[in-house]
Amino acid sequence: MEIKIIKGGVTAPGGFVAGGVHAGIRKNTSKKDLAVIYSPTVCDAAAVYTLNKVKGAPLTITAKNLANGKAHAVLCNSGNANTCNPDGEQIADSMCGLLAKELKIASIDIIIASTGVIGKKLPLEPIAKAMPALCKGLAVGGADDAAEAIMTTDLTKKEIAVEFMLGGKLCKMGAIAKGSGMINPNMATMLCFVTTDAGIDSKLLHKALLEVTNQTFNLICVDGDTSTNDMVSVMANGAAGNAKITKPCADYNTFKKALLAVCKTLAIKVAEDGEGATKLLTAIVAGAPTKEAAGKCAKAIISSSLVKSAFFGEDANWGRILCAIGYSGAECDVGRIEIWLGSADKKILVCKNGRGVEFDEDLAKLILKEKDIKIDVNMHQGSKSATAWGCDLTYDYVKINGSYRS
Amino acid sequence: MEIKIIKGGVTAPGGFVAGGVHAGIRKNTSKKDLAVIYSPTVCDAAAVYTLNKVKGAPLTITAKNLANGKAHAVLCNSGNANTCNPDGEQIADSMCGLLAKELKIASIDIIIASTGVIGKKLPLEPIAKAMPALCKGLAVGGADDAAEAIMTTDLTKKEIAVEFMLGGKLCKMGAIAKGSGMINPNMATMLCFVTTDAGIDSKLLHKALLEVTNQTFNLICVDGDTSTNDMVSVMANGAAGNAKITKPCADYNTFKKALLAVCKTLAIKVAEDGEGATKLLTAIVAGAPTKEAAGKCAKAIISSSLVKSAFFGEDANWGRILCAIGYSGAECDVGRIEIWLGSADKKILVCKNGRGVEFDEDLAKLILKEKDIKIDVNMHQGSKSATAWGCDLTYDYVKINGSYRS
Repeated sequence: MEIKIIKGGVTAPGGFVAGGVHAGIRKNTSKKDLAVIYSPTVCDAAAVYTLNKVKGAPLTITAKNLANGKAHAVLCNSGNANTCNPDGEQIADSMCGLLAKELKIASIDIIIASTGVIGKKLPLEPIAKAMPALCKGLAVGGADDAAEAIMTTDLTKKEIAVEFMLGGKLCKMGAIAKGSGMINPNMATMLCFVTTDAGIDSKLLHKALLEVTNQTFNLICVDGDTSTNDMVSVMANGAAGNAKITKPCADYNTFKKALLAVCKTLAIKVAEDGEGATKLLTAIVAGAPTKEAAGKCAKAIISSSLVKSAFFGEDANWGRILCAIGYSGAECDVGRIEIWLGSADKKILVCKNGRGVEFDEDLAKLILKEKDIKIDVNMHQGSKSATAWGCDLTYDYVKINGSYRS
Repeated sequence: MEIKIIKGGVTAPGGFVAGGVHAGIRKNTSKKDLAVIYSPTVCDAAAVYTLNKVKGAPLTITAKNLANGKAHAVLCNSGNANTCNPDGEQIADSMCGLLAKELKIASIDIIIASTGVIGKKLPLEPIAKAMPALCKGLAVGGADDAAEAIMTTDLTKKEIAVEFMLGGKLCKMGAIAKGSGMINPNMATMLCFVTTDAGIDSKLLHKALLEVTNQTFNLICVDGDTSTNDMVSVMANGAAGNAKITKPCADYNTFKKALLAVCKTLAIKVAEDGEGATKLLTAIVAGAPTKEAAGKCAKAIISSSLVKSAFFGEDANWGRILCAIGYSGAECDVGRIEIWLGSADKKILVCKNGRGVEFDEDLAKLILKEKDIKIDVNMHQGSKSATAWGCDLTYDYVKINGSYRS
């Protein structure tokens, strides 16, 4: 197999160590809130960021630090977004300084990220206090702790690792992500940190990352709210010893496939762990005139509050799916659309030529009871397709978000 | 006062009668489901429709019928949207035929509308059976029954009437509306039927209606889902005897003010009665560089699931308001934005220059306990403003929409 899933997370690639601790940014002492991922060898690095005009202070600092395409480490806290604060950028800079001092690296070689409440001052003291122990504890075995330390309302840890061959050399890629609410990524997304021991130039890394996030993180939606702190970064330290990728070629394509596999898996994990979610919804739109139209339709379906609520209630209300396609902004002839619910052995046709058809309500009930539901749309007006992932809208989403600050 | 609110609904203007009955489209026999509004004098008429590409069959028929700018009556059923059905247009046409026969008018002088479940065949039989009694019962006192018959998940009847002077003649305008879920109107909106005894040419009527819906119905949002059946129509029968308005003039401006007052009141009633809503949210954005930017920001605030959930939980999580402005697509400098919650005597500043400020959490709690909450934004970068209306996102929204078909 070209891309093989292996055990581990961000430290699966050679030459990376990681760690996570409870520094005290959160009140809950049992929850880790500060993570570091570190490569003693300098990495080619790239990142993509939220398109929200309100940008978290850490994103500004990271963009500045990554201007030269190089990085040694990721530093990320949860519990506070360090956004719309007084002195947010100075605080983010100071955080980099604290880590740089411990690791004896340059401050500008750090990717910095924060996630949590917007608009509250992020205190430096607990971070300064925790930093020496956190850096001393950095280890190959610390990937899980890092994955836990970046979680906010997430219920599940999100990590993955894969291996693949580049020019006869075995390369590895690992990643962690967080995200559960305020999820409607555009260009970048929530937080995801990818590591790889493959050698690849930072400009190509950026190109691959842009293409891959558009097909993965930008096609998930929990609640339609694009966060101020979305970021996906990737660091490549070249420890695998492959001939460094410096131009588009077969190796670049393999690398991009690995990156796609990693990002897609984590994007689905984020959708599945959406705040309050009980079901993963996958909208597969095929037969579209353009890739863009397919993406718009798929995203509109899994973003609709009415579609999400109907699936929570296990109600085969397919009219809402067609309605969402209709307002998606995609150029299309709705009179040709066909909609199926379910997959493989359990699958029912609910709409043909844009009109309802009789279906077996008992079979529909069985399909809708599943935790993982496919919405299969054929537009019958082209050959392009796209897939988007979301979750149902539940009482618990409202509960979680009615009292987030308290 | 230029525009005065008076008692009554669509029959407040001279020469209009109305009625509503339970025809049997809905199973619940205590709920009326078929409404008629009728002017024996032919009216100048205009309508605006949803921008959803999936358009209900009744909208197609109404657009055809209104091509000549004339109408005698509105016919509307609830319980079934007559959309994405086999034979939807023939059914809508046949409904017009049934009413035309009873009232002895031309079938093309009817505005037809439907609201309810999408994709189910609308049976003609109960409508045919109910039509004679419904038409026999049409009366000035029937406005309330019509208002009730167009309701779906609405908890409150939505009607209004106003009076105003045109060239020395007392004119009246009345309207009913329905809408509670699938509310994110664009261009037109849910259903609203306006009547007036003022005389005005249908082209000017259309122009006024377009301008007014953009400032009212297009600035409300319950759940972000743009319906397939949105429609606002207005019929002017000239019974007041004013010099017919045939070009933009002082009378036209007065007429437009009356239409604005009527549509704004009903738009707010729809937002307030959003599915599951416990609070009305009003976002007032001032100091914007353009009217468009103000509208985008105001609409984004009241459309955000996170903002809506926070207000349900009475949590002053203003960071989500700024976040929504950031992704609204409005061109603006977020670093100048100021946000206040509450109004008049109870008002707190929560954000200044795009940054959080200390505020009295106890006073915030008092403000957020209210049923009617103002979100007051000053962008400090221009002189344009806009207001948008929405409601909170609650457990009951999810409950209502988890089992809508059943």
